[in-house]
Amino acid sequence: MQSPILEYLRRVHADLARLEEGAPYSAGRTDALAAPDDTDAAGDFGIALATVDGYVYEVGATAKEFSLHSISKPLSYGLALTDHGFDAVDAKVDVEPSGEAFHELSFGGAGGRPANAMINAGALAVASLLKGSGGRSAIRRIEEHYSLFAGRPLGSNGRVFRTELANSDRNHGLAYLLSSAGVIDGDPTRALETYLRQCAIQVTCRDLAMMAATLANGGTNPVTGAEALGLDAVERVLSVMMTSGMYDDAGDWVASVGMPAKSGVGGGIIAVLPGQAGLAVYSPPLDRHGNSVRGVATCRRISRDMEMHFVRSARAGQSAIRSSGTIDREPSTTRRTEEAAAALAEHGHRAAVVRLTGDLFFAGTESVVRELSGLPREVEWIIVDVRDVDEISRLATMMLAELRRGLAEQGRALVLVDPDGRLDPAFADGEVPRFATRDRAVAHCEDLLLERYGAAGARPDSVPVVASPALALLGDTDTRRIAALMERHSFADGDVVRRVGQRFGGVFFILSGAVGITAVDADGTRVRLSTLTAGMTFGDLALGDDDRQETTAKAEGRVEVMVLRADAIEDLERDDPALAVQLWRALARDAYFRMDLDARSEAARMRR
Amino acid sequence: MQSPILEYLRRVHADLARLEEGAPYSAGRTDALAAPDDTDAAGDFGIALATVDGYVYEVGATAKEFSLHSISKPLSYGLALTDHGFDAVDAKVDVEPSGEAFHELSFGGAGGRPANAMINAGALAVASLLKGSGGRSAIRRIEEHYSLFAGRPLGSNGRVFRTELANSDRNHGLAYLLSSAGVIDGDPTRALETYLRQCAIQVTCRDLAMMAATLANGGTNPVTGAEALGLDAVERVLSVMMTSGMYDDAGDWVASVGMPAKSGVGGGIIAVLPGQAGLAVYSPPLDRHGNSVRGVATCRRISRDMEMHFVRSARAGQSAIRSSGTIDREPSTTRRTEEAAAALAEHGHRAAVVRLTGDLFFAGTESVVRELSGLPREVEWIIVDVRDVDEISRLATMMLAELRRGLAEQGRALVLVDPDGRLDPAFADGEVPRFATRDRAVAHCEDLLLERYGAAGARPDSVPVVASPALALLGDTDTRRIAALMERHSFADGDVVRRVGQRFGGVFFILSGAVGITAVDADGTRVRLSTLTAGMTFGDLALGDDDRQETTAKAEGRVEVMVLRADAIEDLERDDPALAVQLWRALARDAYFRMDLDARSEAARMRR
Repeated sequence: MQSPILEYLRRVHADLARLEEGAPYSAGRTDALAAPDDTDAAGDFGIALATVDGYVYEVGATAKEFSLHSISKPLSYGLALTDHGFDAVDAKVDVEPSGEAFHELSFGGAGGRPANAMINAGALAVASLLKGSGGRSAIRRIEEHYSLFAGRPLGSNGRVFRTELANSDRNHGLAYLLSSAGVIDGDPTRALETYLRQCAIQVTCRDLAMMAATLANGGTNPVTGAEALGLDAVERVLSVMMTSGMYDDAGDWVASVGMPAKSGVGGGIIAVLPGQAGLAVYSPPLDRHGNSVRGVATCRRISRDMEMHFVRSARAGQSAIRSSGTIDREPSTTRRTEEAAAALAEHGHRAAVVRLTGDLFFAGTESVVRELSGLPREVEWIIVDVRDVDEISRLATMMLAELRRGLAEQGRALVLVDPDGRLDPAFADGEVPRFATRDRAVAHCEDLLLERYGAAGARPDSVPVVASPALALLGDTDTRRIAALMERHSFADGDVVRRVGQRFGGVFFILSGAVGITAVDADGTRVRLSTLTAGMTFGDLALGDDDRQETTAKAEGRVEVMVLRADAIEDLERDDPALAVQLWRALARDAYFRMDLDARSEAARMRR
Repeated sequence: MQSPILEYLRRVHADLARLEEGAPYSAGRTDALAAPDDTDAAGDFGIALATVDGYVYEVGATAKEFSLHSISKPLSYGLALTDHGFDAVDAKVDVEPSGEAFHELSFGGAGGRPANAMINAGALAVASLLKGSGGRSAIRRIEEHYSLFAGRPLGSNGRVFRTELANSDRNHGLAYLLSSAGVIDGDPTRALETYLRQCAIQVTCRDLAMMAATLANGGTNPVTGAEALGLDAVERVLSVMMTSGMYDDAGDWVASVGMPAKSGVGGGIIAVLPGQAGLAVYSPPLDRHGNSVRGVATCRRISRDMEMHFVRSARAGQSAIRSSGTIDREPSTTRRTEEAAAALAEHGHRAAVVRLTGDLFFAGTESVVRELSGLPREVEWIIVDVRDVDEISRLATMMLAELRRGLAEQGRALVLVDPDGRLDPAFADGEVPRFATRDRAVAHCEDLLLERYGAAGARPDSVPVVASPALALLGDTDTRRIAALMERHSFADGDVVRRVGQRFGGVFFILSGAVGITAVDADGTRVRLSTLTAGMTFGDLALGDDDRQETTAKAEGRVEVMVLRADAIEDLERDDPALAVQLWRALARDAYFRMDLDARSEAARMRR
């Protein structure tokens, strides 16, 4: 089904497409970098969100190419740090926010260094450090480096470069000043050209999202698995983007968006949520700082709605899904008739159990709704177990509500294991059944399955003792002769039929109603072992090591049973050993059959 | 045992105590805030680290009281945001880094506002916004507000206040200038006094750690559970601390420490890792920026070693422990003799299984090593299952290695479930046994338990058929008569004893060796149901619904068995039904006993 995340991004795109302020970058508007890539692009607007596992959500103009411009600054900074080491680069460029416009003639940081690598002075100094190697020119190495981030080959556009060069007097002057100050070694013009060529590298909005996700993923491209940058350099690059990425807006950006980011006058902008996702926006009209108007608005909006601010999202785990399987693999402890067991084995794949852990902030929620949205159409019931979830964000509630609606439209349903009502009632609004334990939720879905896939009589209200599976291996005559030795008893709701410690009282055959079997475990808490219904037997566990009843059997609602009392069995063994053999053999085989089922579900579990 | 985290902090404290640079704050040294709290304090040095679940690690002088000074700025900023809303406060104070010294006469931000609330001008403007209520003076409200962060009542020191006031000409002038600029409404002197009184509030290093942890915890004190500040305000306060908390060091601080932080001339410093922990250091000697020399060094060192930088730690979950229990609650699928089962039930609590998930960065690692270090002394084997761990940091490997050493000294041991060798071999260095599945690891510990707690003969090399638990309920004579009907067979390693689909071939009694029982599950993969050893029986599962062998039994090593063939059983039923009754009854009871064990471990699992 449609991803709730994508639906959300569509709404944001539609809302912010209405923003008409700003003017696309064009020659002469600013003396920084001049000449537009594409003056018709004003209307273009794309949003792409890439997760650290490489999944990309995209809306609008995400495939159109444009120039990186200043978004190249952090990428080249990372390359310089890798080539020369931190000390050598720090000797040329500081890491302090300048609070100045990107084109400021500023390199008045400590020791006459440019304040940071995000302003032109710092970017030119960094560009002067980038050298070719193995016969490749500097720009080829830069293209290859950027390509690792994008996961596809990127190239610099010669026409754009030449236009920029023809309009670069201010930066040319800056390059010479940096040279005179000893910040640039070698030919200032070469440094300028390298810088302008990296600015002219062509990318799409989707490329930018993947580049941002690569930074979010510690420098490894989540799709190709290639390492574009080491974690130490990533840490440094994102730190500088955090304080100096958005020009003189830095403080406000950290406060209101809270993601390291970088924009370019081409209309692109990237924002990085470390460990979780990369966001990219493309929209040419720029504000007075040279930032994309819609780009800034989109980042603010998505950061708020999706709680992607570094402070809020700090606790989000990478994935909140701990286990996921269908109920044929993890049946409830409710014992079923052979027929029902067969029906559940056939249709059990139609109900899935997803156990969530950790925190449902952005990353956890995104991965959860993606997996839930992606469950095969044949899965008609989705049991979501939130008992182990630590924190549930607004986003999680919003997305799960969307998911429930989407499933409902397809006649599918959510079932919650949420004893404490952790999920906002506004989400569940009475339409989502909640259970205290997974066992109860699975039993509920099993019952619905048996109804929908009408394994007729798989859950009969009453079963005559002669039809009991436990006696199935006896011939009719033998069965009737055994049945004739039984006594009929009834119990009211809550009656204790058998209590722990009682001597073996015989084998109980349930004619109708349900019986809960419980025991007290090692640390003294009462646990439910199983729920037995019409056609099933109990009392047999008392046949364990010391003839003592080791479990308690309590009637749930009115219960009718037939009892083959211990003394009746003894009489039978004495008077008709041949029939007694049949009885014991039948009970043994029934026990072995059940044990085999247990062993298989246990084994299925151990493999996870 | 001793916490590896605490041992690490002791080392850091010892190393950095050697730093002798800097001079404690004292009257006249700077014209900002004057007069030392305690001139003898120069040698004091304390480090406290508090987690978001309220656990505090402390080393050195963490209980000595000193003045908050500028660490009060973010706290009062949060209070003002809560009292007046963001817009009203933003109208008075901007959120941009100033890159200026804390005592700069600067309020040249946009619209004549102080650049941010972390410099004196901004702090004075904020102080002017704080009013008393309900008959309480402004400073009483401030004290109460700060006390919520610390989780204990804090008070302002009158002597310190008066000394500061007597040395506050510069700030007094600043207050008047702010008033003239319309930034301060009302009496500038009152604003100054409120500010100086909040600076004089007395705290310990431990208090500071708890205050930082409260910010890390979204504004809720992790110990008292009281909400000191709402999440929106926390987000704003930490954002401003991130860009402007460390005076003109801001950019370098973000790059090298990567935690929102604030220092005070009293020698205190706090750093916040959102969602995870609060770090506090106390050491009076200050650098030229007015930051504690050892405080800054400690933050840099701990951030690097513990990977507490916001970029690195972004993926850390709150807790990486998903389940933890002892092996008596989760036995292996290896079937044991009744004697062994009893021994394991008695001693199983001596081996624990801890399953880890998520990421082992700072928070995950800290909570894991804390739980593992805290396991009762009687737990002699700790099985750590890392199969579900996403990322393992250097810190995790370092701490687990420390833990292993600590356990070894006490004659205790780690056992790993780590099929892919995720954990650095340098950690395991051949001394830590690794297994591919939890089942194998548990079986390993069960064997060691049985050896150490010598349940003599609990794991016999060979068991005569007459001693088989399955026949335990028969009298000696009957047992011998049954045994007489059996055939002896041997199998070599890898021989298939019984194959799926074969007709019931009788009941096999293992005299010596081990037999692996496997089945093919729903999606066609072969799964191990159990491992059977001397004294156990198999073949019985073939007694399931259709007389067909539903599992495959394969010899593991040389195996000797006695077989009670199906036809022998038929003969017995015909010739001596009374004995046949005894046989079937015995087999049934054995089956029920085993089923009871299965049901209990299953139930124990369902409760988690």
